[in-house]
Order: sequence, then C-alpha cells, then structure tokens
Amino acid sequence: MMKHDPGITRKQKGLVIVNTGDGKGKTTAALGVILRAWGRGFRICVIQFIKPEGINTGEYIAASKLAIEWYRYGDGFTWVSKNGDESMNRARQGWQLAQEKIASGAYDLVVLDELTYPLHLNWIDTGEMVNWLALNKPSHLHLIITGRNAPRALIAYADLVTEMKIVKHPFNQGVKGQPGIEF
Amino acid sequence: MMKHDPGITRKQKGLVIVNTGDGKGKTTAALGVILRAWGRGFRICVIQFIKPEGINTGEYIAASKLAIEWYRYGDGFTWVSKNGDESMNRARQGWQLAQEKIASGAYDLVVLDELTYPLHLNWIDTGEMVNWLALNKPSHLHLIITGRNAPRALIAYADLVTEMKIVKHPFNQGVKGQPGIEF
Repeated sequence: MMKHDPGITRKQKGLVIVNTGDGKGKTTAALGVILRAWGRGFRICVIQFIKPEGINTGEYIAASKLAIEWYRYGDGFTWVSKNGDESMNRARQGWQLAQEKIASGAYDLVVLDELTYPLHLNWIDTGEMVNWLALNKPSHLHLIITGRNAPRALIAYADLVTEMKIVKHPFNQGVKGQPGIEF
Repeated sequence: MMKHDPGITRKQKGLVIVNTGDGKGKTTAALGVILRAWGRGFRICVIQFIKPEGINTGEYIAASKLAIEWYRYGDGFTWVSKNGDESMNRARQGWQLAQEKIASGAYDLVVLDELTYPLHLNWIDTGEMVNWLALNKPSHLHLIITGRNAPRALIAYADLVTEMKIVKHPFNQGVKGQPGIEF
C-alpha cells in the first residue's frame, strides 16, 4: 500500500460524485479517479454492485497489482436480475460492507460502482441510504457512485453529478466490447 | 513494463474514442481506460495538449510509478492561450510525436488528451489529422481523444463518442478542485 499523505488529504472537502446517464464512461471515469487518487497515495476502497466475483476485468487485475481494496457483490445481470432473493441479498451485503468501510474513517476514496442498480430495484432504499450517508460519511471522504438512472434523492445529495450521453456507439455497428478498453 | 499479451490484443478492433462535452470526466474516463489497459498489459502512450510539464497531477505521479509513457505539450492555458506562437509550436510538436507513436505500431493504446484544444484554435488542421489517422493508424490500436468542442470531422471519424454533461457542479458552490479527484 502507498504511504498516505496527510498534508494533501486533510485539507480536502470530501465530494459526493455521481456518474450517471446511458452513455459509456460512468464506471470508467470512476476508474480514472482511482488512478489519480492512487497516484497521490489515497486509501481507496471499491465495491461493485453488478460485476460478479471471478471475472477478470482489466480494472480488477490492475487493482490486484496495485493492492487496492476491491469487492464485487453483483450477480452479473444488469437491471433484470434472474436470481431474485439471492441477488438482492448480495447487493444488501455489499451496501452493509460499504457502510462499514465508509464509517470506519480509514479511507480517502470509496467507489460504489453501479450502486444505482440495487437502488433502482428498491433492494436498497435510496432515502435511507442518503440519510445514512449524511450522518455517517466522514467529511474528508470522497465518495463516487455510478450507474444509470441515479435516483433524484441521490442527485439532490451529491456535490458533482455528470451525465454521460451516447453520441455515437460502435455496438450499434456490430463491434463487440473490447478487453482493456471497456472491461 | 508489463508483459504484453498478444492473445488478447491481436483479436481486438482498435477503437477511436472521443470524450467531449462541457462536463467533468473526459480526461478522467480516458485515465480509467488507461488503468484497465495497464491491467491487461497493454502498451500505452499518453500525450497531453493542455497540461504543461512540471505539474504533479495524480495521474502523472501514477503513470511514473507504473512506467506508462507520458508526455505533456501544453502551456497550461485552456482555450485562450497567452503564449501565441510558442504554444502553437508546442502543440504541433505534440501532434508530431503522436504521429510517430501511432505509426510505430508499438502501442495498443494512445491517448491524446485535450487534443481538441489545438484543433479548435486551428493550430492543427482537423481534416488533415483525420486523413492522416485513416491512413496510418494501425487497425489494432485504440486511440482516445478528449476535450471540449470536438470538431465534426473528428466525430464523424470516431467509433465511440460520449458527451459528458454537467448536471451539478460544486465549483458553482464555491468548492475548489480537489487533489487526487480532479487532478
């Protein structure tokens, strides 16, 4: 792990950042912040809510090499889950872990990737989540939440919200997702 | 440097990706792809057209640690340059280096960060650039170009174009850019 630099991080105001929209770049921009934050020696924790365990994405391989804490609580399905209660329980376990990590004060950056998915399915209550964050998020902690259809209450709570919009997409032209670029 | 994995990269179709729009996340999403690509052992080259030499951004520190090739040809000014010919010459040198790197065939991913800036100022001719890329970009090479106001001819040439839109921005609320998150 990198040495933590209190000179930089103590001055910071922890931002709540939401990357939403139908376009590419929501998770990818979060990964970019992870690279920046890692460069500065931040303490980082990532929890993914769609990606299942056991899949070797480029980012997961990179995180392993860089000793970045990284957890996956997804079932691999997007938006239409096929596993019912089991998937819901996994997502709730992910949120429980997120709460522990956030409240611990031991991190400078926590990324909750595709958290809007269990919010959208009402597996996790958005209002309760926002209330919990308002009470328990350390003020220095940067928090990034990604995913389509970010609920209004989350957008209202966030400091920085970006919508990624598709202008042109190669999947429409029959090109498959490319390893190292899209996963 | 990481060992290159020809098993993955030889199958790939090199995408031309443009991240544009007024919102955050254009450069940041490119950094996320760099993290993914580094995880998979891709050969990476980054050239920045706004960031000047000598500034320690989080991404630059990270790239140094990860032995990612990284060059900066900017004057630090955005859109309104104060240095005239000198800035123009730097940008053109950056594009010349980019051409060498792209044509060499020695990379899997080339990132031209904020290249739309010298394109917008007509320091580099967009039509000539696109024609050159169409003739010289190796088919396996992924190319990412970022920046506001991507010219139409560039969008027409690209495979994947995303517009980053501001929904909510903390600078409007008097919050400064945060190290490790925004640079």
